[in-house]
Amino acid sequence: MDDLLMVPGPTPLPPEVRAALTLPMVNHRSAPFRAVEEEVQAGLRQVFDTTAGRIFVLPAAGTGGLEAAIQNLVEPGQTVLSVTMGSFGDRWANLARVFGAQVETLASEWGSYPRPEELAERLAADREHRIRVILLTHNETSTGVLLPLEAMARARGDHPALILVDAVSALAATPLRMDEWGIDCVVAGSQKALMTPPGLAVLALSERAVATMRAVKGPRGYFDLRGYLKPDNTTNLPYTPAVSLFYGLRASLKLILGAGLEASYARHERLGAMARRGLEALGLKLVADPDAYSPTVTAAYLEGADEFRTRLRGLGVTIAGGQGKLAGRIIRIGHVGFVNPVDMLGTLAAMEVTMGREHAGHAVAAAETVLEEVAVR
Amino acid sequence: MDDLLMVPGPTPLPPEVRAALTLPMVNHRSAPFRAVEEEVQAGLRQVFDTTAGRIFVLPAAGTGGLEAAIQNLVEPGQTVLSVTMGSFGDRWANLARVFGAQVETLASEWGSYPRPEELAERLAADREHRIRVILLTHNETSTGVLLPLEAMARARGDHPALILVDAVSALAATPLRMDEWGIDCVVAGSQKALMTPPGLAVLALSERAVATMRAVKGPRGYFDLRGYLKPDNTTNLPYTPAVSLFYGLRASLKLILGAGLEASYARHERLGAMARRGLEALGLKLVADPDAYSPTVTAAYLEGADEFRTRLRGLGVTIAGGQGKLAGRIIRIGHVGFVNPVDMLGTLAAMEVTMGREHAGHAVAAAETVLEEVAVR
Repeated sequence: MDDLLMVPGPTPLPPEVRAALTLPMVNHRSAPFRAVEEEVQAGLRQVFDTTAGRIFVLPAAGTGGLEAAIQNLVEPGQTVLSVTMGSFGDRWANLARVFGAQVETLASEWGSYPRPEELAERLAADREHRIRVILLTHNETSTGVLLPLEAMARARGDHPALILVDAVSALAATPLRMDEWGIDCVVAGSQKALMTPPGLAVLALSERAVATMRAVKGPRGYFDLRGYLKPDNTTNLPYTPAVSLFYGLRASLKLILGAGLEASYARHERLGAMARRGLEALGLKLVADPDAYSPTVTAAYLEGADEFRTRLRGLGVTIAGGQGKLAGRIIRIGHVGFVNPVDMLGTLAAMEVTMGREHAGHAVAAAETVLEEVAVR
Repeated sequence: MDDLLMVPGPTPLPPEVRAALTLPMVNHRSAPFRAVEEEVQAGLRQVFDTTAGRIFVLPAAGTGGLEAAIQNLVEPGQTVLSVTMGSFGDRWANLARVFGAQVETLASEWGSYPRPEELAERLAADREHRIRVILLTHNETSTGVLLPLEAMARARGDHPALILVDAVSALAATPLRMDEWGIDCVVAGSQKALMTPPGLAVLALSERAVATMRAVKGPRGYFDLRGYLKPDNTTNLPYTPAVSLFYGLRASLKLILGAGLEASYARHERLGAMARRGLEALGLKLVADPDAYSPTVTAAYLEGADEFRTRLRGLGVTIAGGQGKLAGRIIRIGHVGFVNPVDMLGTLAAMEVTMGREHAGHAVAAAETVLEEVAVR
């Protein structure tokens, strides 16, 4: 079998997606490609859970999608509130700074998340509505923390700021209801729960965000989303799209929506629970607080984390290490996309082997209790 | 068989490349991916023909590579000389404008190219060296015109401006000797003569350009090439690379370099000659002047061009139409990448059928004369 790739992206690919990558190239300005594009758009619309929003698929990593959101929705000089709980939140704030935004920060300790009440207070104090945009990270990949996105979005209340969400490691793995929760922009990437190789950034913009995007005057070229919308609001391709990745994403969306988004959400929830129980049975301390667990990545403190990861790779299991101030101090298990419970059990078993004879069976046994509680598809 | 895709990108894929796209995902921050990256870098080094240059592979369309060149090599406010002969040259100049450059233009009629003597004169007149960067288009895809790049680069003489080259539709199809000709930056894309799906921009920077890149202060985030070079000059990945496209590019470079770059150059030259003789035998007037022929795309005037293309598609042959001021007025045959002489003969035969009985055999017979003159691999 393939080695187990248990990192938070890129994630393993379903065979249907791998096969789709080999379809013949077509002219991207043609009816056959338009049909592919329309299927992808329709599928993403369901995943973003929006009827009014506009969807954009760009040839870029997720980071490119985050830059596109900034360039198109923030005028240089405007004030942005960065709600951050780890290195990916900080990175987005930094992109906003690079392109001229005044960044204010609402930060939590790593392992926790800023509370909706704190956000509501900050916005209530902003009586002059200087804050034009709020940056949220749905799932902080560096710590394995999930933000309660609905509560955070509702905490905006009557404040007119746009809400932008980095959902790169969350979309399709946990509920996100763009229209219902009043989110103005969601950014994701192809290579996580969307089970497609890296190389596509996907964005959805609310009607309000589209109006802002059309009005912003700051510099933007490659990521100018106006290039994707003709004046008559029809779709346009300003340059060559990543055709083979579109084929892959179409195949993946068919799988995800065929089984139902709820099934994907439940699968990720279950994998997260297995990871947590397994790691705790090995005596490891989780990075995330108990009310902050992520369904796609689980981080735990471990002395000699990087050497441990090297030994685990010797058994054919790849997990991730720490980033930023957690580098070398933690391990992170990605359980996102095309991953099943047996992959998780295999990962935990390999960790037992790596940690020594006295751990044999403990993590696996603990994780299996999750499967006893919840029927597995 | 697959339909014939005779457009200037995306181009058909060799079976080895299609197969490579299906390889399993790996952690991009790992030894296995580093090995892939190093093979790709080594192969591209040969294609760019540089020993000292630094090579960057970005998850982006070619346009993203053009933007990266501007953001990293042009300080806002600096003067750029845009040497343009069509819509892709104009597009690059526009990206420079968007990011704050003062753009001066040296333009030719469409179908021709600005002369090296004109460039030398413009630079000689710039005694204060206000011009910091010269933008050249190696092959203008909108008109099917090849710039005599060596002569243009040498026309710089002692002027200190950096020379940046858009080689998106030229690289690996026609000679480009970065070090020997003193070129400071070359930008290309994966989806043309590199025979890989679209989604990767490749750049090479001379040592001088790397020094400029490190010094520039203008805003750059996703395309900040400093993120790809650590301070100690080793390679870094600032975000997730497009893993599957790296696999494809590695496979394609192996094919191209295995047969030899000279073979690729000769094949494209021959395909261009076949296209020109075929189209002229059908009574069409070429867009490019006789001294300006491109080896990768051939454009010709044709009344009712777009309707003609639709009828051709009915026979399973896709060619491109006009762009910008040539929209609807010309056809363009792409003959770049994984295309062989029989594909070209089939295309010309389908055109004969579409144009009517009186043309039967004429274009094909004319094109075949090229094969009689030059041995076909």
